[in-house]
Amino acid sequence: MVWLQCCNIARLGAGSRLILLLFKTMTDSQRLRDELQTIAKYGSALALLSWDEEVNLPPKAHAFRGEVNALLSAEVHRRFTSAEFIKLVEKLSSESKSLNANDRVNVEETWRDLVRAQKLPVKFIENLTRLTSEAFGVWAEARKQKNFKIYEPVLRRMVDMKRQEAELIGFKVSPYDALLDEFEPGMTSAQLDKLFVPLAKNLSALIGQAKDRNQQTLPEAFYELGAQTKLCHEVSEALGYDFNTGRIDASPHPFTTSFHQTDVRITTRYDENDFWVSLGSTIHEIGHALYEQGLPAKHFGTPLGQAISLGVHESQSRMWENFVGRSQEFSEYLYPLLKKYFPDQKLSFTSQELHLWLNRVRPNLIRVESDEVTYNLHIILRYEIEKQLVEGKLKVSELPAVWSQKMKDYLGLDVPDDAQGVLQDVHWSHGAFGYFPTYSLGNLYAAQLYSTATQKIPDLAKGFSDGDFAKLLGWLRQNIHTQGRRYRPAELLEKLTGEPPNPVYLQEHLERVIKLG
Amino acid sequence: MVWLQCCNIARLGAGSRLILLLFKTMTDSQRLRDELQTIAKYGSALALLSWDEEVNLPPKAHAFRGEVNALLSAEVHRRFTSAEFIKLVEKLSSESKSLNANDRVNVEETWRDLVRAQKLPVKFIENLTRLTSEAFGVWAEARKQKNFKIYEPVLRRMVDMKRQEAELIGFKVSPYDALLDEFEPGMTSAQLDKLFVPLAKNLSALIGQAKDRNQQTLPEAFYELGAQTKLCHEVSEALGYDFNTGRIDASPHPFTTSFHQTDVRITTRYDENDFWVSLGSTIHEIGHALYEQGLPAKHFGTPLGQAISLGVHESQSRMWENFVGRSQEFSEYLYPLLKKYFPDQKLSFTSQELHLWLNRVRPNLIRVESDEVTYNLHIILRYEIEKQLVEGKLKVSELPAVWSQKMKDYLGLDVPDDAQGVLQDVHWSHGAFGYFPTYSLGNLYAAQLYSTATQKIPDLAKGFSDGDFAKLLGWLRQNIHTQGRRYRPAELLEKLTGEPPNPVYLQEHLERVIKLG
Repeated sequence: MVWLQCCNIARLGAGSRLILLLFKTMTDSQRLRDELQTIAKYGSALALLSWDEEVNLPPKAHAFRGEVNALLSAEVHRRFTSAEFIKLVEKLSSESKSLNANDRVNVEETWRDLVRAQKLPVKFIENLTRLTSEAFGVWAEARKQKNFKIYEPVLRRMVDMKRQEAELIGFKVSPYDALLDEFEPGMTSAQLDKLFVPLAKNLSALIGQAKDRNQQTLPEAFYELGAQTKLCHEVSEALGYDFNTGRIDASPHPFTTSFHQTDVRITTRYDENDFWVSLGSTIHEIGHALYEQGLPAKHFGTPLGQAISLGVHESQSRMWENFVGRSQEFSEYLYPLLKKYFPDQKLSFTSQELHLWLNRVRPNLIRVESDEVTYNLHIILRYEIEKQLVEGKLKVSELPAVWSQKMKDYLGLDVPDDAQGVLQDVHWSHGAFGYFPTYSLGNLYAAQLYSTATQKIPDLAKGFSDGDFAKLLGWLRQNIHTQGRRYRPAELLEKLTGEPPNPVYLQEHLERVIKLG
Repeated sequence: MVWLQCCNIARLGAGSRLILLLFKTMTDSQRLRDELQTIAKYGSALALLSWDEEVNLPPKAHAFRGEVNALLSAEVHRRFTSAEFIKLVEKLSSESKSLNANDRVNVEETWRDLVRAQKLPVKFIENLTRLTSEAFGVWAEARKQKNFKIYEPVLRRMVDMKRQEAELIGFKVSPYDALLDEFEPGMTSAQLDKLFVPLAKNLSALIGQAKDRNQQTLPEAFYELGAQTKLCHEVSEALGYDFNTGRIDASPHPFTTSFHQTDVRITTRYDENDFWVSLGSTIHEIGHALYEQGLPAKHFGTPLGQAISLGVHESQSRMWENFVGRSQEFSEYLYPLLKKYFPDQKLSFTSQELHLWLNRVRPNLIRVESDEVTYNLHIILRYEIEKQLVEGKLKVSELPAVWSQKMKDYLGLDVPDDAQGVLQDVHWSHGAFGYFPTYSLGNLYAAQLYSTATQKIPDLAKGFSDGDFAKLLGWLRQNIHTQGRRYRPAELLEKLTGEPPNPVYLQEHLERVIKLG
């Protein structure tokens, strides 16, 4: 059988005319929802193209795939910034007080996105897109050669453009706030300082204590990949992931993507000598996926059907990975599963040793290989540096020296070369300034939310040892997932926990982790 | 990591404006190519959505996927039938004599597609699309219940609509020709009769001879699926399939799909007790895929970058499956591979027995399970019936009786129930009348082309036994694949073989197959 795309063009798309006829009798709110859903459907197609690119694409197909992506992206952009659409949202926004609560959220959040989008001239976006392509290539080459000097000129231009972008967007206190707001709506660097400065100080001190404590190891073993896949599936299902509306594949960099609430996919990666590489990634991504599967399908495409922020998204993945997956109860659940899936291996360790091993603390030069405790110092270091760059208080040329100094101060490590230092992350080459803080905000939110959950739900963790995670998921579903973008991150935290984001919960949690050793 | 689709909308699609600026300085021919390529890129996205639906889709994601498909299909339809585009192609068509040879092909073939597309009113297409959805569901239920009566009313309406379609398209002799032309441009039922009537007569006679001849069996064995996959990969690569621009997955109904010349994918299916289920399907689909990978990439999206017809496409898959894959030389090549990939199995048969087994002749009630010889009678039976339906010479209610009679006449078989008779194929429920003949045209073209190839290339089959198929592929690439839609099917045959389509080559080939036994 073969599918020929040249035939049957005459048959295609009969449905669209019907939709246009209906359009005229809709209310403005309905028209907004309708157009947002159409845009979201193009977004879904784009998301599939990207997923396929990571998971399946033949090596020589990248160039053409890029062209298809560009075409659909342009269509999304055209629709979202069309004069007619802007007029509609502006009108609704001006009368938003007369709308019902749901429509008001959709109008206000869409208007917020649109106001931001309109502030950047097309010419600026073109230049930034071009610079991003260039910067990524140069960054990859510089990292390969372990030489920051190669990257420096293009990064300087990127910092300049991001400073321009901040001016175009506008800000009250710091230009960094304009960039941060894209990823964490409503968050400012003043607030981040309040959260991160005490955390950094306390963590640095804690690491001093931790160094000689938990260094638990496990005996070497071989974990067959097929069995690892089955283990990941069983655990995912137990956590509440629905395989009727999702699937797990392999890719070099694990990720979650959602095409719709009925199709939320994750990927993981494998190491034959370490089952936690796949299982830990899986639990993390399942945390993201449970959020996406739990968004209300009836609001698909509109703000009420979308996640609040990167920080809140990360709070879900981190909660499942660290607060659930690294708990004593989870190790009790996991231990017999390891025996079941890897019967040939001796696995001569106890569930208590497993738990200790999952919580060992070892300062590491590389962020993505770091443990739960030291990870946040990696983030705070990046936050401090990128904020100073955007505020013009640090020169790009000074980066390697500042990086080394901070690594020494925070983690007590010497940076042997740029590849293991300032060149390790892709983010800045993509123009993503203001993105890093959302990782630690995720940890911070997770700690605070989990602390509340343990108070509200008696014996929350007890069920974990039997593979019962339904209580926690139910609480997250009801209070976070089904709410879409109804609240800003800080508002959500205050509503659920009774106080704004507070670093003390994360700090106490990490102290407990250290004391395990 | 998570991808958030709500962010960065402002960044998307900067490239599109540049393209619009360029558009104004293009010649009309360039504008045509440009718009056809844009349409083809939407087609690529649609093809990926469909591929993913067959290979990956979570069970509950079908409804939403249908909505995304409808949206992109509508966009393709809107662009292809926009007043501006029609005006452009019409203008170019009126001056096509002044164009260079390549542009002329593109203009004339596009105009041909467009003339056909414009003949069907939107209302008609909507009704047909709706009927197709309904008919598919009813057909599936009727087949499940083995009861044609359930299907009869909706099939009657479908035949009526296809007769209307033929009237709208227009025809000279038979309304069937208007439908056939969609799948096999330029072919008519008068020509089909000339090809198929003598073939049917001779084949029926041959089958009488064959019945007591080749009934070779192979001893039972277990063919591990992972090893089957590896075997399929090795053979595909040997045939010339490029895994840098393709991949093989599993799906219940094997198929080939092309997103672009750099991304041509096939699927296969597996049976643990029969390696040929996966390998035979793979070789067949690789035949399609080699055609698609061999189309000229510089003409992507335009007729010069497209396959000629379903019949010619099928000639490629059938040539590789039957003329190569079932040759004595191929069995010599395959035999050691079976020993290599299934070392645990005894495989107590010879390469000669393997060859006989691959060429055994056994009349079967089900088309897709038929052998090479009897397959064509299945097709001719369907052709005769659907032609009479469209010409109004046969009533839908008479179908089961006519089917049974023809099965008895042609294959000597009694039809026990409708599911194993008239309800076995999906095609008519999709509204695909005029599609079936392309299967046997594929066989017929394959035989005629292969006969020429063996004359032009000394020792063509000799290399097969060493896994060397480059000579045949080279000849197909040069003479067929790189030509796109430059020739009509009959024209291509005449140009390459010196005569129009002639059934004698297929007949002689099938006689040789029968005489093997």
